[in-house]
Order: sequence, then structure tokens, then C-alpha cells
Amino acid sequence: MSFFEKLKSANNSVWSDYTQHEFVRGLQTGTLPRGAFEYYLKQDYLFLIHFARAYSLAAYKADTLAQMKAATATVSALIETEMALHVQYCKEWGISEAEMQKIEEAPENMAYTRYVLEKGHAGDILDLYVALSPCVVGYGEIGKRLSSSPETVTEDNPYLPWIEMYAGEEYQEVSDGAIKQLEDLAEARLTEARFDSLSKTFREASRLEAAFWQMGLDHKAA
Amino acid sequence: MSFFEKLKSANNSVWSDYTQHEFVRGLQTGTLPRGAFEYYLKQDYLFLIHFARAYSLAAYKADTLAQMKAATATVSALIETEMALHVQYCKEWGISEAEMQKIEEAPENMAYTRYVLEKGHAGDILDLYVALSPCVVGYGEIGKRLSSSPETVTEDNPYLPWIEMYAGEEYQEVSDGAIKQLEDLAEARLTEARFDSLSKTFREASRLEAAFWQMGLDHKAA
Amino acid sequence: MSFFEKLKSANNSVWSDYTQHEFVRGLQTGTLPRGAFEYYLKQDYLFLIHFARAYSLAAYKADTLAQMKAATATVSALIETEMALHVQYCKEWGISEAEMQKIEEAPENMAYTRYVLEKGHAGDILDLYVALSPCVVGYGEIGKRLSSSPETVTEDNPYLPWIEMYAGEEYQEVSDGAIKQLEDLAEARLTEARFDSLSKTFREASRLEAAFWQMGLDHKAA
Amino acid sequence: MSFFEKLKSANNSVWSDYTQHEFVRGLQTGTLPRGAFEYYLKQDYLFLIHFARAYSLAAYKADTLAQMKAATATVSALIETEMALHVQYCKEWGISEAEMQKIEEAPENMAYTRYVLEKGHAGDILDLYVALSPCVVGYGEIGKRLSSSPETVTEDNPYLPWIEMYAGEEYQEVSDGAIKQLEDLAEARLTEARFDSLSKTFREASRLEAAFWQMGLDHKAA
Repeated sequence: MSFFEKLKSANNSVWSDYTQHEFVRGLQTGTLPRGAFEYYLKQDYLFLIHFARAYSLAAYKADTLAQMKAATATVSALIETEMALHVQYCKEWGISEAEMQKIEEAPENMAYTRYVLEKGHAGDILDLYVALSPCVVGYGEIGKRLSSSPETVTEDNPYLPWIEMYAGEEYQEVSDGAIKQLEDLAEARLTEARFDSLSKTFREASRLEAAFWQMGLDHKAA
Repeated sequence: MSFFEKLKSANNSVWSDYTQHEFVRGLQTGTLPRGAFEYYLKQDYLFLIHFARAYSLAAYKADTLAQMKAATATVSALIETEMALHVQYCKEWGISEAEMQKIEEAPENMAYTRYVLEKGHAGDILDLYVALSPCVVGYGEIGKRLSSSPETVTEDNPYLPWIEMYAGEEYQEVSDGAIKQLEDLAEARLTEARFDSLSKTFREASRLEAAFWQMGLDHKAA
Repeated sequence: MSFFEKLKSANNSVWSDYTQHEFVRGLQTGTLPRGAFEYYLKQDYLFLIHFARAYSLAAYKADTLAQMKAATATVSALIETEMALHVQYCKEWGISEAEMQKIEEAPENMAYTRYVLEKGHAGDILDLYVALSPCVVGYGEIGKRLSSSPETVTEDNPYLPWIEMYAGEEYQEVSDGAIKQLEDLAEARLTEARFDSLSKTFREASRLEAAFWQMGLDHKAA
Repeated sequence: MSFFEKLKSANNSVWSDYTQHEFVRGLQTGTLPRGAFEYYLKQDYLFLIHFARAYSLAAYKADTLAQMKAATATVSALIETEMALHVQYCKEWGISEAEMQKIEEAPENMAYTRYVLEKGHAGDILDLYVALSPCVVGYGEIGKRLSSSPETVTEDNPYLPWIEMYAGEEYQEVSDGAIKQLEDLAEARLTEARFDSLSKTFREASRLEAAFWQMGLDHKAA
């Protein structure tokens, strides 16, 4: 079993709570309230910035030049490409960049992003990447599952492009790369004694991801 | 107007939301559900640890030896004295240390503590102390106000010792010291251009403090 | 006077010791022992990595998205372009990449790079960029001065390409950009009270840069 | 073999260069030039501050409350007790505290202290403590060896109190405690893959310690 599989299997129910959250089911069936998705999208703009900061920190903390290059490529992809795509995508939902820039950051957003960043400072690069993994890999898993599920509504589902993006080859490569990288870091730095602590990080990050979905649902009317 | 007064006055309504939160009114009138307070106490145990970590970071980031000594004295006070007092106090509420050590950290706890710590890494010692101030100074203000308010129920109010502790001379000195320290740091490091960012930090930290009270209310049955 | 000019003028003699170091005069006259330059080039390979780490830290600590993009662009330029150019340039001097990867880092290299990085952690982004500035701007100044000086030997000077690179438009833009950025950060974060501390950072970083040249001279036979 | 023994045996010659440095032999025979020792003492004042900062960082990065308490106790001991003792001791050598506060930090001092601190930021608490160990444990080893060596001059040796301090029970306990702590951290966090990197940290820190002695010798006339 890979390290990532071990993390998941040690946190089965939290992982399900996150990856099969009501918000995700709403994406699948197309019944997610538009307001929930829109609030999620706006928060995701701020999320991306902190996510890029986390990879900048990873570049700083890298053990090797190859790791540093990989992390920096992710930062560049996030702040140059992903944010532009996000802005473009949000425009299609009627949300302007100006609107996103002035939104108040939700506590759920702060909780997850700062948890990840602080874990990175307190620990080593393995701690940091474990904290990031529920997001990077979880979205890949959600995209793949929804895309291949017969229960996924494909007609008139406004969330289909979102599903297809994360199910798409490009994102799946990102997600597979993250699993591979975690494997390499675990080989270098994982000890039996550290597993519980890393598993806890994984569990807490997954819970905070689930809370991020819930934040969307709770603000559906916002 | 002192720097701290400026921060408060720029964030009036958030500051009221926090310092006059329903949880605080419940402490004042003695009507706060015991379960709410007990959950708060358990989370506060974990909070104290992260709070001490924040002062360790402050000691590291100190500009002067005097600042370093002050921050270290706070760390020692927190992990040696305060935590022991907290454990003792919790015992009176029927909560054992073992119980506190195994509690799952609430997202609201993670949000506030990690926000403060991460702000400290990203910025300088002024950023860090501004993020800490709603807690340190806010509790002093709450204690003082409740202790001198005619609306405060003093008979059969199980929360009176809590109020008296924060209204007490010892804590008031801590709180006054924190205001003074913030003033000194502002004199050294505050620019007009930084005020908005520091005010935002103050606002967000105050919101996260209010959410910490709300967490108690929401778990009253837990 | 710009902030950078103020830093320089407060540290005149240290700045001269660095920018007019015997090593620099050796580059100008072409009399620098080859061994000194070669050792310098090998150490510079490791230096570039730590320099890129410093900009990764700057990207993490950035106050704005624009600052973050600028810092990340520098990291990418360093680890993708500059290091490849450096490897190529070293090859012309008969130094292979394998040789550079196994070199023992000189104490002078460690002193400067770790000083910069640690200053970045302890302080804010202004502290970090001030610590970086003697390198970024100093090389631009040296290149420009040597390139336009009548005392510079242009015939059979093996160091002329080095001089021309730093005198070139591309590097001068980098250097001018760094001065401009420092100006912006100073406008946002400089206070009278901080000047002495920042000036000390500038002075120490300049001294460590001078020691980096000296390291080359001392190892001329290595 | 303990982890610390493994680190030493993997870096035998560097460890000897450090612990049997000419400066150390000068302490043993009493022939170390007074100027060398005095310069060393003055630099050591600044060193202690950065050393305390490193333990503050360790307190922040601690995996457990027990580790946090231990690191904080060290910070307190350093900035409250050790610095006062150092000031007192220096006074006996005719060096006032004012003189120490205005001394320019030597590059060798910066190199070692910033290397340790930056290693702590980049890595985890094991990386940090390995970087600190040549100092903490090395001084204990030097003290013990010199104190029991028949070659140590005990009559009219002005450095005998220094030797006796580090050979004394109190410091030996500190040193033994550091070895024990390293052992615990290694048990929790050491992997085969990390050994080379940690051994490199140990080697570099030991080299920088040797350079610190050399700094004293080089400034004997200062």
C-alpha cells in the first residue's frame, strides 16, 4: 500500500466526509444551489493565493534542487495560469475579479490555509506536503469518481465543466504527481513513529476541506 | 489615541461582536450552559499550547534582548503556570487533564491559532503582536467590564471566578503590558501604509475570537 | 535621496570595500588568478541555489500578489535560466556541473546566504530585500563601473564577458528593478526607528559580500 | 552506537579539528594569547543571544509539550542565567557589558549561528538539534577531556576556570541531556535516507565551530 493509501485508510470516515460531502453530491447531481457554488468560487480565489504561498514555502524547504524546481513550477502555474483561469471561469458565473478581491475571507478558508502553512513552518517538507495532499489529491479523486459515475447528471448540469476539469488528464497528472512526490518524501523521511502525527495532519486537513465545502452550503444565500 | 485604541476604533463593530458576544453575556448573567463553558475550557487547553508557541516565535523574532526576555517570560508563564492553573481549574469543572489531552481540536481553535502563528512568520514582530492582541487585551477588557458592571450576576454565578481572574490585578497588568508593548512596537515599526494591513489583522483576529466563543455555544451539548 | 542611496551613504566605506575589492580590481585588469575566479564560480553555483531559496521565502512573505509574482519570476529565472547559464559558463572555464555539485560549501558562502535567509525569517519582507540588495544591486554597479572605466583592460581580459554580462542591459534592468522595489517597500514599511537596523543589515550583508570576494582570493590555488 | 556517536564517527576528522583545535590546546596549556580569548568572549556574548533564539525556534517547532518545556527552560537559562554569568566572567577579564554590546559581530559568528537557525527553519526539530549539537555536546566533551588530561596545565593557567566550568557536573548534565534528547528525536524522526543530510549538517556545524576558535586566534591582537 502506498503512503497516501495508508493515510487514507487510517482516516477512512473523515476522507469520505470530505470527498463525498453534500456539496460534492450537489455538483454531481447539478442540484447544488448556485449561491453555494458562487461563494465557494469567490473564496477559492483567496485560497489559491495561500496555496501558492504554501508551495513557495515548499520551494524554500526543499531537500533537493529537483524538489525546488517542482514546487516553483507549481507556484508559477498557480499564480500565472490557474488564477487567470479561475478569474475567467468566475466571469462565466457572473463574478468579477474586483468582487473576488474585496471578499472577506471566510474563517473556514483561513483555518485550512493557515493550518497548512503553519504545519509547514513547524515541521519539514513531508509535514507540509501531507497537509496539502487532501486538497491536491482529493480534488483529483472527486473529479475522477464523479466523471465515471452513472449517477452523475451530465445534462443541464452547470457543474459539469468543473467536474470535467478535475477529471481531465491535465489535473489527473497533477494529482498523480502529488501522490508520487509524497511517496518519495515518505521514503526519505517517514518513520513508524511519525506516522501517527502525519496521519493526524492528514485527518485535520481533510476535516478542514470538508468544512470548506460546508462553508459553501452555509452561504448559499450570500 | 494609542495604537491599540486606533485598531479598536477602526474595527468597532467586530470588536463589540467579540467582546460582547452572547457567550460573554452568558458568563455575566451566569446563564451560559455548562456544556458550552466546558467545551470552551477543553479547547482552551490546546489554545494555550499554541499561544505559547506564538510567544516562542515572538522571542525568536524579537528586535531587542528586552523583547526576547519578555516573550520568553510569557512562554514560561504559559506552559509552567497557566497550564497548571488551567488544569486545576478544569478539575473543578469535572474535566480531567487526560480528557483535555485527547480532545479533538475544533476548527475555530485551529483557525485562530494558526492564523496568528502564520501571520507571525509572514510578517514581523508587530504583525505577530497585533494578531495576538485581541486575545490578550480583549480578555482583560471583558474581565474589567464584567467585574464592574451592575448587570453582572454575582450570586450563584458559576462563572464569577473566571470573571474575577481576568478582572484581577495580575491579569490587568498582563493586559496593560501588552498594550504598552504594542505601543512601543508601533512607534518603532508602524507606518501609515501599514495601518490598513495591521487593522485587517486585528479585525480578522477579533472575528476569529468571536467565532471561538460561538464554538462554545454551538457545542453546549457536546 | 532614494532609500538605497541612503543605505549606501550610511555605509560608504564598507560599500567601497565590497564593490572595489581587490578581486574586482583583478577582474578589471584581467590579473585575477584563474584559480581565484574558478573557486568563486564553483561557490557561486551553491550561492545561486540559496539565493533562489531567499526569493521563494520572499514570495511567501509578499504583501501583495504583484510582489509574489515578481519574487516567483526571480526564483524561476534563477533555477531555470541562471543556473543553466552558470553551468554553461563554468564549462567554458573547464568546470563541470558534477564538480560543482560535489564542492564543499565555503564558510563565507554559508555566512552570507544563511544571514540573508535568517534575516528574512526574523523580520519582514523589507528586512529580507535589504539583506539581498548588496548582491543584486552591487553586481549591477560593479558591472556598470568596470564596463565604462578607462582602466578596464578589454584586450585579452578573460573576465570581460563576466563584466559585460553584469553591465549588460538585461542585468541592469534587474538591478534597477531591485532598487525600485526596495523603494516601494521602504515607502510602505520604513520608519525612522527602523533605519539603523536596516542599515546594519545592509552593512553586514556588504561585509559578507566582500568576504565572498576574499574567499576567492584566498583559494586561488585550490 | 548512539545517533550522536554515529554522527561523530562519520565526521571523525572534522570533529577532531574542532575539539582539538589549537585554540583548545591553548586553553589546556594556558598559552592561548589573552587577546584571542578576550575576542572569543566578546563574540560569545552575541553568540549566546542567537543560541537562545535557536532554542526559541525549537520551542516553537517542538513535537511535544515536554520538548517545548525543555527548549523554553534552555532559553530562560541562557538569557537569564548564562548571559549574566558571562557578563560577570567577562568583567573578570576586564571586558564590560557595554563593550560587548557594541562589538561588531564576526563573520565566523554569523556563519555558525545563522546556519543553525536557517537549518531549523528549513527542516524539522531534528535538523535543528543536530545543528546545535556540536556546540552543546562538543563543549562538554572538551571540558571533560581537558579536565582529566595530565597534559592540562593547572598551575597559573588563566583558562582553568573555563575548563572547570565545562567539565563541571552542571554542564555535563546539560551535555548529556542534549545527547539523550538527540537520541529521542532520532528514534522518532531518523531514517536511513536522512542520515547523510544530518551528517552533513553535523559536519558543517563542526567546521563552523572550528572556524569560531580560529576567529579567536586570528584576532589575538584585536
